[in-house]
Amino acid sequence: MSEPLNLEQALEKKRARRLNLLGVRYIRIVKELDGAPRGTAVLDDGTTVFGYPRIGRILSLDQGLERQFEAPFWMEEKIDGYNVRIFRHQNRLLALSRGGFLCPFSVDRVPELIDPALFEAEPGLVLCAEIAGPGNPYLENSPPFIDEDIRLFVFDMMRLGSAGFLPHEEKRTLVERFTLPTPICYGRYTGGDADEIREIMLQLNAEGREGVVFKEDTPRDHRAKYVTSNSSVQDISAAAASLLELPPEYFTNRLLRLALFLHQEELDTSPELNRRTGAAFLEGLTQAVAGFERDGKVAHRFTCRFREKEAAEGFVKHLKRVSGPRVNLAQRGLSREGDYWVLEFERIFQTMTGTLENLLGGGLVFD
Amino acid sequence: MSEPLNLEQALEKKRARRLNLLGVRYIRIVKELDGAPRGTAVLDDGTTVFGYPRIGRILSLDQGLERQFEAPFWMEEKIDGYNVRIFRHQNRLLALSRGGFLCPFSVDRVPELIDPALFEAEPGLVLCAEIAGPGNPYLENSPPFIDEDIRLFVFDMMRLGSAGFLPHEEKRTLVERFTLPTPICYGRYTGGDADEIREIMLQLNAEGREGVVFKEDTPRDHRAKYVTSNSSVQDISAAAASLLELPPEYFTNRLLRLALFLHQEELDTSPELNRRTGAAFLEGLTQAVAGFERDGKVAHRFTCRFREKEAAEGFVKHLKRVSGPRVNLAQRGLSREGDYWVLEFERIFQTMTGTLENLLGGGLVFD
Repeated sequence: MSEPLNLEQALEKKRARRLNLLGVRYIRIVKELDGAPRGTAVLDDGTTVFGYPRIGRILSLDQGLERQFEAPFWMEEKIDGYNVRIFRHQNRLLALSRGGFLCPFSVDRVPELIDPALFEAEPGLVLCAEIAGPGNPYLENSPPFIDEDIRLFVFDMMRLGSAGFLPHEEKRTLVERFTLPTPICYGRYTGGDADEIREIMLQLNAEGREGVVFKEDTPRDHRAKYVTSNSSVQDISAAAASLLELPPEYFTNRLLRLALFLHQEELDTSPELNRRTGAAFLEGLTQAVAGFERDGKVAHRFTCRFREKEAAEGFVKHLKRVSGPRVNLAQRGLSREGDYWVLEFERIFQTMTGTLENLLGGGLVFD
Repeated sequence: MSEPLNLEQALEKKRARRLNLLGVRYIRIVKELDGAPRGTAVLDDGTTVFGYPRIGRILSLDQGLERQFEAPFWMEEKIDGYNVRIFRHQNRLLALSRGGFLCPFSVDRVPELIDPALFEAEPGLVLCAEIAGPGNPYLENSPPFIDEDIRLFVFDMMRLGSAGFLPHEEKRTLVERFTLPTPICYGRYTGGDADEIREIMLQLNAEGREGVVFKEDTPRDHRAKYVTSNSSVQDISAAAASLLELPPEYFTNRLLRLALFLHQEELDTSPELNRRTGAAFLEGLTQAVAGFERDGKVAHRFTCRFREKEAAEGFVKHLKRVSGPRVNLAQRGLSREGDYWVLEFERIFQTMTGTLENLLGGGLVFD
């Protein structure tokens, strides 16, 4: 059992904030506190839902596996979506985002995506999952194997009030008992299996998939992630239209990952990969310029489904509130389609829009 | 005539520094002071060599010319080299770098590159010039039309003690009288000539040249630069091996320029341009990784010619002194070849080397 957190002091220092979302009063940990990661939530009844810890990345397979792992590890697919923690609180299923916000979209959709009987049997369980697909309201990227809407993938489990993850076997047992959707588990390996792992990575790369997470099968449960070169190209492609919205390291980091993946897989860069990498930048930017010329702004349109109309309305309000002042959102449509309310909203890239306005207007820059 | 600078206060505030280089004692302006740009030098006899001012960049040709210029402007080729100010001081020809350092390489070579009779006739003249070519000791880039060593291009003139440039006609007269090498001057245009200028830019782009500077033909002498998409690709290509050495905006700025040049020229991105843009990043990075695997470091080797052996030795010392602690230089050779001393030295990219050491050694990164 973890020690109680020193919340009063953290609130004073603004390392923690009081929130009231979806009718739940709680305290959100903004900066890591006594081992509780950013995103930890302390609910009104004192229950703590610990944050999902950061996972480090290796960029060298052989050396990385050798150096990071002291024992065999599980290798699971990494899904390109957003991270949620799902748990039951006062008879409601709730879902916290990585940063510790109760997410109206996830809370609305989660009951469809998992068997609620799970929480009857395991009321203290916390599912750590990725929500991914073209119908997600946060990311422009989506895995190639999800054609529409969203899917959920449970990759870890915790217990309310505890910071650690359930061991692999305990997780598997619950996954099977409640038929929970999970990422593919490729098996249990050691550092000596780098060649076999390299083969799997090549296959994932060819299929346009993101990569894997290695999880040591020991109580310390050490982890590392490793991604394909294609995932870097896709990240660049999805983000290029908002080039100036992101820290520029977003792009240079991915280029370095890409080059090191080639090195690890003993590949040279090819005309085809060069072309795709250049296109990722230039087609995104060209689209941004064309969008600005057409609409006077650079924006991305999201389309996502809700079960409840109120949830959709609440989601836009929520997103406006939690986004910084430089993020501009505009609802573009909310209509009934079949069993769902379909929300369309735009995220307007203000830095990109402002910069193009200045540059295409003939402004002078000193760079 | 400009007002005398308040040097004592500037020295106290470290906006100015005392230096003793090549036997010349002077004060270098580190941060703009009373209108004297960074790089201004106040020599031991009180003479001021004003710094070369920053020139803003336009990224839209039509709107940029329209908005920036109130009168006809000259259009001159922009040369991809380093900026020097050449002047006579106590019977020596000296050359200051942009930042205000007396450059031992430039001082050694300048007497070969211009007719010294110029300064007999015009002792108070300051030539503002670009030194470019594969034999320059500062830049990895070099214009495609310089096959070896260096060339000098005079693009502006000032007078000792004055901050402004000589008018275009006065400059042309001196250029012709002393047969000074200059960048190509394309002529005198107005904003209404954008179509003709666009044609010239396309031609420069096809020839792999950098771009142009527009200089308003009025006393205010307002300026703007405008570069080709090829120059952005070449900048990326030359810098990719030192990806982490430069601010990441170096790369994102050039990608944006590239996309806007296409837009201005009404071109779409093409598979060939995409391929070259991707290759600029990936081939540079692949070479960096291969260099690290081979030599345990990422480095670039420079080869340059000096007339005097002492100048070559002094240059390496000078470069070590003025470079930051994160730049590592190593002399690799100095030998007589024909009329010259040929210096080889390496610039070792410490951030790139250290990062690859960590990553290829299996280190974990949190990004």
